[in-house]
Amino acid sequence: MRMAQRIGLPDDGERLLDDLETLAGLVDDSLPGWTRSALTDLDVDGRHWVLARMREAGLDAHIDAAGNVIGVLAGNGSGRGRIMTGSHTDTVLSGGRFDGNVGVASALEVARSLRASGTTLAHDLVVIDFFNEEVNPHGLSCVGSRALTGALTPAHLAARNQEGTAFGDALGGARVDPNRMHEAAMDLSDVIAYVELHVEQGPNLEAQGTQIGLVTDITGVAPFRSLFTGRQDHAGTTPMSVRRDAGCAAAGTVLAVETIASEQETSRGTSGSITFTPDAVNVINETAEVWGEFRSPDGEWIAHARERLAQAAEAEGAKRGVGVELEWLPSEEPVPMSEPLLGIAGEVVADLGLSHSRLYSGAGHDAAFMALQVPTAMVFVPSQGGRSHCPEEFTESADILAGAEVLLNTIVEISVRHAVR
Amino acid sequence: MRMAQRIGLPDDGERLLDDLETLAGLVDDSLPGWTRSALTDLDVDGRHWVLARMREAGLDAHIDAAGNVIGVLAGNGSGRGRIMTGSHTDTVLSGGRFDGNVGVASALEVARSLRASGTTLAHDLVVIDFFNEEVNPHGLSCVGSRALTGALTPAHLAARNQEGTAFGDALGGARVDPNRMHEAAMDLSDVIAYVELHVEQGPNLEAQGTQIGLVTDITGVAPFRSLFTGRQDHAGTTPMSVRRDAGCAAAGTVLAVETIASEQETSRGTSGSITFTPDAVNVINETAEVWGEFRSPDGEWIAHARERLAQAAEAEGAKRGVGVELEWLPSEEPVPMSEPLLGIAGEVVADLGLSHSRLYSGAGHDAAFMALQVPTAMVFVPSQGGRSHCPEEFTESADILAGAEVLLNTIVEISVRHAVR
Repeated sequence: MRMAQRIGLPDDGERLLDDLETLAGLVDDSLPGWTRSALTDLDVDGRHWVLARMREAGLDAHIDAAGNVIGVLAGNGSGRGRIMTGSHTDTVLSGGRFDGNVGVASALEVARSLRASGTTLAHDLVVIDFFNEEVNPHGLSCVGSRALTGALTPAHLAARNQEGTAFGDALGGARVDPNRMHEAAMDLSDVIAYVELHVEQGPNLEAQGTQIGLVTDITGVAPFRSLFTGRQDHAGTTPMSVRRDAGCAAAGTVLAVETIASEQETSRGTSGSITFTPDAVNVINETAEVWGEFRSPDGEWIAHARERLAQAAEAEGAKRGVGVELEWLPSEEPVPMSEPLLGIAGEVVADLGLSHSRLYSGAGHDAAFMALQVPTAMVFVPSQGGRSHCPEEFTESADILAGAEVLLNTIVEISVRHAVR
Repeated sequence: MRMAQRIGLPDDGERLLDDLETLAGLVDDSLPGWTRSALTDLDVDGRHWVLARMREAGLDAHIDAAGNVIGVLAGNGSGRGRIMTGSHTDTVLSGGRFDGNVGVASALEVARSLRASGTTLAHDLVVIDFFNEEVNPHGLSCVGSRALTGALTPAHLAARNQEGTAFGDALGGARVDPNRMHEAAMDLSDVIAYVELHVEQGPNLEAQGTQIGLVTDITGVAPFRSLFTGRQDHAGTTPMSVRRDAGCAAAGTVLAVETIASEQETSRGTSGSITFTPDAVNVINETAEVWGEFRSPDGEWIAHARERLAQAAEAEGAKRGVGVELEWLPSEEPVPMSEPLLGIAGEVVADLGLSHSRLYSGAGHDAAFMALQVPTAMVFVPSQGGRSHCPEEFTESADILAGAEVLLNTIVEISVRHAVR
């Protein structure tokens, strides 16, 4: 088998690190950490900055009908089909400055490094900054990759936030027309690989002292909204035995999520959001709302957890005369990555003298949607202390550059292997 | 022993019911139920309406330095000292239209009925609408009665709301000058009785089919604020075993409050308010705040409950690596009512052909502060379904009028008995 020449990043990767620095500056200064939420002007600014940077790098770039920024570096036409790479640049509230930015900036740097080294791939290389990967106030994530893969449905556009606004009606701020989003669906049948670089966001690589993670599966995610309806009463005069305290039923459900998820090492359960109404110190709460989620790489476990939570929430309500509505929001199945691509990436890592381990991703990614249609691989670099989605999120520059080199050379290797067939 | 002539309410009490209707109209229409929160323009309007109504009734009335509306109906000077009666007109958020209004409107009606019947008491009668009886956003209640009895301290004025504003700095909206509030402290040594009519706010009178409740004790109240500090992390990548989820520690504490208070029939525990931060569906919460309270007529039980909650909150934090701050806000001790006054009220009730039972008040009242300095009694009328501090709060007009008649004749009887000594 022919093996490609390994390529390095020009200027020791300074340009890539500068790009990350620039993206870290395009954030909402009124919040701690780094915030560039989808559906905001800042996110529009961020995506237009990426667009401009793609064009500077010689890519044929545009923003599609779903807000994805897409740039193409033309190959020499000798290989059939395309290779794709990218990530996202939106963030959670008060998140970190690495997350999706690393994958987008590295994908850009891959294109620039190919040109700088005089390498023309056999295949067109498509660099992408996916719109709205993080969960938005409507409970939706991976919006751009859903749209690109034709998986965005009218139900998604109808998903309401806590104020009752449909997602479709909130897209104006993102300069996206909900009536045209379906036009972003792309024929992906000629795509031979999607490869995404990302920070691990968990503690495993650091704990093992490994430089590179090769992802075997992406977790499934089952988000829920639960509403508890009790009775508003006076906190002093209403005996404990007759009160219908919605807040207590909600608290019991929050603990049930934790207990259920603690059963297995790979499972996760989080009750991220809670609201009591009327939320006054001396009034029994009439309603309580909890938003949360289960995650696991094991789809059967998720199904089992959903059943157990439904029973637990019912029980918490029943023992207090509190009504319970448990609604499961659009969920994502666990997705395995492409073994052939993982094999190629593993060879590249070894060839570059880096250590690696295989692990699953507890975070959802656009790669999960891509993997439903095209061979997909994800490459992880370590996250300090496993911290992510918080201001303390940190990855060493050396680790980012090593990851970008793995991404670059894995893409070259994939192209070379497909060209000779 | 001389017994006073019983007096009835003129016009079958229509004027009293009209006054309650007027007060029910002076509310915030943007919220369900009836809301006239202290520290708002509406509350200022309400208290000025009471002031005008007192003056119409021939009382010598003013608003004191603590926002209390005080009106005096002069007696004939033959008795030494004063008799007081009243309640409050502020409400909880989305509360009912009876609560304190019944006591204020009935106190007004007592003065008017005395004049209408040509009765001049041996003693001056002081009618009062106490400022800010309900718990405000600073965790304080009975502000006006504290000020009147000299129990308002600089610590109360420094109490902060969730935004960090001191109570003293929030008083502008109520047209109260925090630097002059101490001037409202009144020499109460000549007050021979304070009698307050109130709706029960609990289910006992209705369940027993009794028309009048005579209050033996007013509950103690121990409000708290608890802050849990964990670590913000990614909900998908952070294993359950290493996460420091402040929301789960808070939920465990909410359940501990419920469990502890369920030990005894007369005790109450409520976690009325909760806040998660950052409160996003897929982020582990860095902090969580719970505001709540214990109540009981038994001071020893409250001390015991406080200890148990401190242990429980510590345990909920410790098992998750979450820091816990539990702060006890200004509390109120349980207070017994005056047995001699209860005896007089019981005779009046029997004489009027009404049924009564003795019970304790699970709600705090301005009467608890008055009772620390003057002989005090409270008369309850039934609350439908025991509901209170909610829009469904309801008391039959016949019950209100019966209560007002008991209040009127109890005051007359107290005056007569003190005059002949």
